Amino acid sequence: VLKALLTDIDGTITRPDRRISTGSVETIRSLVDSGIDVVLASGNTSCFMDALCKMIGTQGTFIAENGGVYRIGFSGSLVISGDQTVVRSALSIVQDHFSKKGIPLDLFSPTYRFADIAFARTVPAEEVKLVLRDYPVQVIDTGYAIHLQAPGINKGTALVALAEKMGLAPADFLAIGDSVNDIQMLKTAGIGITVANAHPDTKAAAQYIATKEYGDGFVEAVEKYYPYFRARNRSTTI
Amino acid sequence: VLKALLTDIDGTITRPDRRISTGSVETIRSLVDSGIDVVLASGNTSCFMDALCKMIGTQGTFIAENGGVYRIGFSGSLVISGDQTVVRSALSIVQDHFSKKGIPLDLFSPTYRFADIAFARTVPAEEVKLVLRDYPVQVIDTGYAIHLQAPGINKGTALVALAEKMGLAPADFLAIGDSVNDIQMLKTAGIGITVANAHPDTKAAAQYIATKEYGDGFVEAVEKYYPYFRARNRSTTI
Repeated sequence: VLKALLTDIDGTITRPDRRISTGSVETIRSLVDSGIDVVLASGNTSCFMDALCKMIGTQGTFIAENGGVYRIGFSGSLVISGDQTVVRSALSIVQDHFSKKGIPLDLFSPTYRFADIAFARTVPAEEVKLVLRDYPVQVIDTGYAIHLQAPGINKGTALVALAEKMGLAPADFLAIGDSVNDIQMLKTAGIGITVANAHPDTKAAAQYIATKEYGDGFVEAVEKYYPYFRARNRSTTI
Repeated sequence: VLKALLTDIDGTITRPDRRISTGSVETIRSLVDSGIDVVLASGNTSCFMDALCKMIGTQGTFIAENGGVYRIGFSGSLVISGDQTVVRSALSIVQDHFSKKGIPLDLFSPTYRFADIAFARTVPAEEVKLVLRDYPVQVIDTGYAIHLQAPGINKGTALVALAEKMGLAPADFLAIGDSVNDIQMLKTAGIGITVANAHPDTKAAAQYIATKEYGDGFVEAVEKYYPYFRARNRSTTI
């Protein structure tokens, strides 16, 4: 029995052009309207995720910054994990390295991030990893951005923490994603699935791989599991 | 001839439950894909508007904070109008007034606002106006929030400024909205229209009123004007 859905955004409920898939939006709304909690999980900022929750129409619960931040419900407070100080130091090292080559980093929403740092893939992720090989920081290439994250934090660790605060177990969740940074949450959830465009390593961690890509694959896969969802007792404190 | 669309969000491209209308999203995408600029205008924060532009898939141009902030394109910088100092002073007066009655104000995203201040409609807008009657600040009740704004700033003044930077005239825009804070932009644009759920004063300022409400009215009205849109020379600097 599944009680909640946890879904990645980019590459999973988007179209190939990165616009949100309206079919995915309708699928999420039908779950929400059936009393199923839908949690959005992304490397994006909490402000971005709040906007997405409102416009799609979920209960407002999200994981942002690849697990560095989460929030339960629209009125919940942001819970921040990991030390951004170490991430900011790592960023300085990377900036120094590339500025010597005359390449400035294109930071994504730095003032709206509380846990990780994200920048454009205008520099090779492998070179960033090499520069930071002895530094206690994760370098994550999601295919959409390069993220610097405190060690031991990912969407899976955030799932464990938020599930407990929601009065659920990670096993109650169906998780769906496409990137390597989704692997931990797919493994942590009761059932982990991917869309057809997922990274091979992500597919290897999944119990089901949709035959369709992007948002169409999301709709296909979630509809397949729809009979296993049960609305939990809504008197549970959120 | 119309060259761009300027649209309000809440009440105009949403459904009655405040979720975004997927029909409106598809209508906006068809304009964008035809080379027509679509500008989103709202009382919401610039971060929220950025998320919406990405999710819908516009060119990234928006008016936020009811005209207090605008941006041209995803890579544009925020342009902030009006002095938030006077707005913050006005907020203190309002907070003092209601705290004496034991009513705390519920501020909306205060750290993400650069021009106006917004709070929940848990206090009467008329009482806020009375408290600030001698203070140089606008009190705007959009039906979704109460906003405090520097004088002389609205979505219409932002339209004048951003149109010039886009190499367009306000007369090149079709503007659509529903609330009283949309009136100035409807009057400033070449053609101003409303959805059927619009405020009577907003309808009075419009050249066309859709027969349908909310997102359905948006789709109906924009489709009516679709033959009058012409993609402008895309070599124009944005």
